[in-house]
Amino acid sequence: MAESRLSTIALTPKALRFLDQTCLPTEETIVETADYRVLLEAIRSLRLRGAPLIGISAAYGVTLAAREAILSSSATIHETLFSVCDQFAATRPTAVNLFWALARMRSVIDATPDAQNLPAALEAEALAIHEDDAMRCSAIGRHGAEMIPSGAGVITHCNTGALATGGDGTAFSVLLAAHRAGKNIHVYADETRPLLQGARLTMWELQRAGIPSTLITDSTAAMLMRSGRVQVAITGADRIAVNGDSANKIGTYGLAVAARHHGIPFYIAAPVSTIDFAIISGRDIPIEQRAAAELTEWGGRRIAPPGVACYTPAFDVTPSDLITGIITERGICAPSEIATLSTPRS
Amino acid sequence: MAESRLSTIALTPKALRFLDQTCLPTEETIVETADYRVLLEAIRSLRLRGAPLIGISAAYGVTLAAREAILSSSATIHETLFSVCDQFAATRPTAVNLFWALARMRSVIDATPDAQNLPAALEAEALAIHEDDAMRCSAIGRHGAEMIPSGAGVITHCNTGALATGGDGTAFSVLLAAHRAGKNIHVYADETRPLLQGARLTMWELQRAGIPSTLITDSTAAMLMRSGRVQVAITGADRIAVNGDSANKIGTYGLAVAARHHGIPFYIAAPVSTIDFAIISGRDIPIEQRAAAELTEWGGRRIAPPGVACYTPAFDVTPSDLITGIITERGICAPSEIATLSTPRS
Repeated sequence: MAESRLSTIALTPKALRFLDQTCLPTEETIVETADYRVLLEAIRSLRLRGAPLIGISAAYGVTLAAREAILSSSATIHETLFSVCDQFAATRPTAVNLFWALARMRSVIDATPDAQNLPAALEAEALAIHEDDAMRCSAIGRHGAEMIPSGAGVITHCNTGALATGGDGTAFSVLLAAHRAGKNIHVYADETRPLLQGARLTMWELQRAGIPSTLITDSTAAMLMRSGRVQVAITGADRIAVNGDSANKIGTYGLAVAARHHGIPFYIAAPVSTIDFAIISGRDIPIEQRAAAELTEWGGRRIAPPGVACYTPAFDVTPSDLITGIITERGICAPSEIATLSTPRS
Repeated sequence: MAESRLSTIALTPKALRFLDQTCLPTEETIVETADYRVLLEAIRSLRLRGAPLIGISAAYGVTLAAREAILSSSATIHETLFSVCDQFAATRPTAVNLFWALARMRSVIDATPDAQNLPAALEAEALAIHEDDAMRCSAIGRHGAEMIPSGAGVITHCNTGALATGGDGTAFSVLLAAHRAGKNIHVYADETRPLLQGARLTMWELQRAGIPSTLITDSTAAMLMRSGRVQVAITGADRIAVNGDSANKIGTYGLAVAARHHGIPFYIAAPVSTIDFAIISGRDIPIEQRAAAELTEWGGRRIAPPGVACYTPAFDVTPSDLITGIITERGICAPSEIATLSTPRS
């Protein structure tokens, strides 16, 4: 999977290379840029997406900004870089990994008084954030695979693989580890309207990994569960509150409700960086609203009449009582135990 | 709404005119044809769709076939027309109204020994089936509107309006009657993947009728219910078994599961012709599988990688215990009382 990681995002001495995910699955378009503003736009337009990857991308963006700023006036570089951090923080409101990564970058700016040292220091931190996430992904896969029964049908929503993270993924890493362990799983991927990350990205990653899989519309999940073909449901998360309530791609909540109705365990897989220890319950997680055009247009063609009202939350919140367990790099815990993860591992 | 009905489908002395629903909402394309084979294709490709309208279309198709057959050899016309009935019966397997309408047409063929009389007799029966459905729609609206609370948010799935029936619709007729009664409702329409009948057709009909409405992705329904904005869920049906289990557009079952989870009443609206008194439970309703391309392509562009497996049932079955009531032209009844409707009204 080393190529997958590299093709998703990679810093070079002069630029940042990343895969434009809006072009998948028809084209594998690599963007190469030294301009952090291109990254701001790429995050806003979901060319780069997935909670952990957004954090990694922002960290690289601040690194690019430092390289650029050092060429002009190094007097105000700290100020400039804090402002760039603010611009990245304003791209997308829900995934907390973004704010977590930016907090790490801000600490480095603070701790590096000599402007000339900033590019290298920020680059080192961004690479550490990236590598760190890759290790977390592996650990999540290892822990999560243990609870996947042999021969299980597993349903997932949105994309949580190498395209969404700095490593093998979150929920996807669990699928990958179970598959590699010879558990003979079959994955059902929700297409995930409106932006079809399931159809475009998850099916692409499942196919590359050789995991037996089937694509369904989001609304087929419930009948599939009723048919007995699904034994486990697992998704990622964009922000987890201290009580275990989890925000994730719109449709996750409905999937969790359907799983409960059918007695199917429902898991969230996410690194500890996804937990917002400042937020008590899911009620306080800010939910991004997307443009109505994501519902009314496809491929430049209208699919709804002009002028219709749309309700377009990008995420919903699954209350902790519908979540069987949360899989982090530190193991599987009950949603009620999430608060205990606030203490760093010894 | 007279224009709506006329534009959906209308027999003329020489031909049949119908609205090609695959072109909506961007174009209102009227097809005019005297060839029943064009109708066969139109039903298969969903240019004409909606359980009651499929039945009406098939009845008109047999009428066109009679007009054509009488021009050539009247000796074998009965045989020819029975074979045309068989061809229409093979277009789509789930909606029972098709078989119900064809049974009526077959009876007329049987009861009309003189071939010269067949075109007029079949035309009269087709028009009666159409007009009959319009009256059933009105009665469904009248009965159903009574249970819609003032100021209610009402969620619906797929399309059940003038485009799906011979009149004002089934579930849509209830919405229309409630709106006209000044109940100040707000309708949330699921877009209804994969063919987007909710976005393309229902939003178009809601807009024309001036009913306040909002479009959502199918997977947004559950969080909308949790937010308290939905008081009633109502859909149509393609076939109802004697125990009340109801087949309807894929996603209806998940909607009913979500409604139950949130304590929201879930209604089915359909004419008695949708009830299959020969089928005991939903388990025996044949479910049409659609082409994988409906999931993997949109507007000629791939939205999933080549070669992926897809699971594409066009319908699912909602078990009767999730259905609060079934609204027919004869009133609202509990799913358990469906069997009593087998006796014709006195």
